[in-house]
Amino acid sequence: MDHKKVISGYKKQGARIETAARVKLRTKADIAFWYTPGVGVASSYLAEHPKEARQMSVKKNSVAIVSDGSAVLGLGNIGPYGALPVMEGKALLFKQMANIDAWPIVLDTQDADEIVRVVKALAPSFGGINLEDISAPKCFAVEAALSELGIPVMHDDQHGTAIVVLAGLINAAKVAKKTLSKLTVVISGAGAAGTAVAKLLSAAGVKDIVLLDRAGIISPARQDLTPTKQGLLAFTNPRKLSGGLDEALRGADAFVGVSGKGVLRAEHVALMAENAIVFALANPEPEIFPEEAKKAGALVVATGRSDFPNQINNALVFPGVFRGALDRGVTAITESSKLRAAKALAALVPKPTAAKIVPDVLDKRVVPAVAKAIR
Amino acid sequence: MDHKKVISGYKKQGARIETAARVKLRTKADIAFWYTPGVGVASSYLAEHPKEARQMSVKKNSVAIVSDGSAVLGLGNIGPYGALPVMEGKALLFKQMANIDAWPIVLDTQDADEIVRVVKALAPSFGGINLEDISAPKCFAVEAALSELGIPVMHDDQHGTAIVVLAGLINAAKVAKKTLSKLTVVISGAGAAGTAVAKLLSAAGVKDIVLLDRAGIISPARQDLTPTKQGLLAFTNPRKLSGGLDEALRGADAFVGVSGKGVLRAEHVALMAENAIVFALANPEPEIFPEEAKKAGALVVATGRSDFPNQINNALVFPGVFRGALDRGVTAITESSKLRAAKALAALVPKPTAAKIVPDVLDKRVVPAVAKAIR
Repeated sequence: MDHKKVISGYKKQGARIETAARVKLRTKADIAFWYTPGVGVASSYLAEHPKEARQMSVKKNSVAIVSDGSAVLGLGNIGPYGALPVMEGKALLFKQMANIDAWPIVLDTQDADEIVRVVKALAPSFGGINLEDISAPKCFAVEAALSELGIPVMHDDQHGTAIVVLAGLINAAKVAKKTLSKLTVVISGAGAAGTAVAKLLSAAGVKDIVLLDRAGIISPARQDLTPTKQGLLAFTNPRKLSGGLDEALRGADAFVGVSGKGVLRAEHVALMAENAIVFALANPEPEIFPEEAKKAGALVVATGRSDFPNQINNALVFPGVFRGALDRGVTAITESSKLRAAKALAALVPKPTAAKIVPDVLDKRVVPAVAKAIR
Repeated sequence: MDHKKVISGYKKQGARIETAARVKLRTKADIAFWYTPGVGVASSYLAEHPKEARQMSVKKNSVAIVSDGSAVLGLGNIGPYGALPVMEGKALLFKQMANIDAWPIVLDTQDADEIVRVVKALAPSFGGINLEDISAPKCFAVEAALSELGIPVMHDDQHGTAIVVLAGLINAAKVAKKTLSKLTVVISGAGAAGTAVAKLLSAAGVKDIVLLDRAGIISPARQDLTPTKQGLLAFTNPRKLSGGLDEALRGADAFVGVSGKGVLRAEHVALMAENAIVFALANPEPEIFPEEAKKAGALVVATGRSDFPNQINNALVFPGVFRGALDRGVTAITESSKLRAAKALAALVPKPTAAKIVPDVLDKRVVPAVAKAIR
């Protein structure tokens, strides 16, 4: 990707989303009805019947995409302005794919309590909250504190990623002629995404999951684990492995990278079992480029990017999740909804191949299929 | 206005504004450019050059319309859901009149410090902040605390109202064949709007201004004045009047109502000077209805509503103010900008009559004229 071309394209474009009027104000009567004095009647009514805001206001179809810029793509803590293009891009996808009115809100704070306070304060205007690119472990506390907000709140880096990875793995296992529950899966990255992927794979029946953070395998032998990471040991690393990627990958069926560019080398892939599955999902630069992974012996390779086959990207998930939640007044995205969504997504590719394990991001069946799974 | 018809209309309509994509994602290449991996390039760039967010993101043309619902129209403290229809209506006007992408944000807090904290936190995504329907005196502190935000912040109930009232008064004085600076002006309501109107009229040269709150004339004799209201005595009530509307209106040239429905009665109007000017601006129900005011002797009557002549409404102001501020990178709406805006607005009706002192809200010359005044 030509960096200069991208930057000049974005500069020339300016905003990528805008607002649009859903009613036209042509006459004074239009203004009297849709603005003053009519709006006063609607205001008095909603003050008495606040729950009906979901039916008769922008709350009906809107999502705030909230980020503090602390963990943007694989770029790290680059702050609110660094985060803004990503949030705006998501707003674009929300609209085009699911006809959801999403607005990017990047925050000038990275304090967990403050993020919670801000999101609680602005919740009345929105039908849902998509938390995005907030670093772990803060993101867990933020999401938990917002679980009773009365509107769906989803940290997409966790659950969007987990759903699409599970969908991809269901089909990749078919291609590799292996059973999902018997896979050994190595997850590189124990932040928001890695943690959520591990949890959802475990809920889907995968028994042998090994997670790694920057210091190596999350193992009982480690003395440096945070409480969150210690908690992961309850359902990961059953063989009590220690060490680094070499130790984790020896004989493994699948690698899921949600870490950073270049983490996986050809020598690592060579250590894996036959018909290895490699999901190198770091964005914008993957853990390993597809060609290299294939050359090193991987059968199924996926990235998060649009410019390679098998795009395992949250874009397959978040528009449908919020479409379903908004349409059905769902206020929490449960584990069973997530499992159903992953299966629904996988089912859209009934005969997966090494080059096609997930539907295309532009496939119009994706949003309705995922939306239907959210109950 | 038929209340049932309004409520069923708003229910049927659902949201009145939506988002729209400004770029189309038709191919994988489009997604690669405008989403991932392209967006990562833009993100890295903006992290290094945050000031360019104004040029290459939604910040370029967006305004957050923020309210805590503590003083909605003339309806009072009806909370965030009560406020939402008004903010959404303003977003509609922002788009239709000034092509500004405004999003309504109603807050689940009414604490001044918390409002400031929330607005500061969400400012990076927006090009401007329109504070709205926040009660006095809290609104003064909130606006002052946000004055250094680096983007324009305007409490519309104060300054939008003040600008449009001054514009109307300039032309009403012409119709009444009186000199603006020599008018005696009685302002009913010493909240956000009344205070700002008094300040701007004073800055425009009006010397005899008498303000009233619920307890009567703001006078040196009062023991119950807040510091904010005591401050008003520096430039109002030169004759040191005491009492209520009767005392204030005796011989007055103009009444400006920014208070509540029915406050002004025919007997009050009869006390005023010849060729009296009555601005009954409470929304949705004015201080007096035009027909009654005319019958009682008023020459020029205006309301805030679309369904009577002479609509003195902020809608004539806020779209143009933010258009000008966004286009010119103006970060503070100064007193001289406000005075220029009022004069520009008045100048659009070069030959005012009793039935036409301000331009129509749908007049396409309004936004450019006001925008040009903001420097």
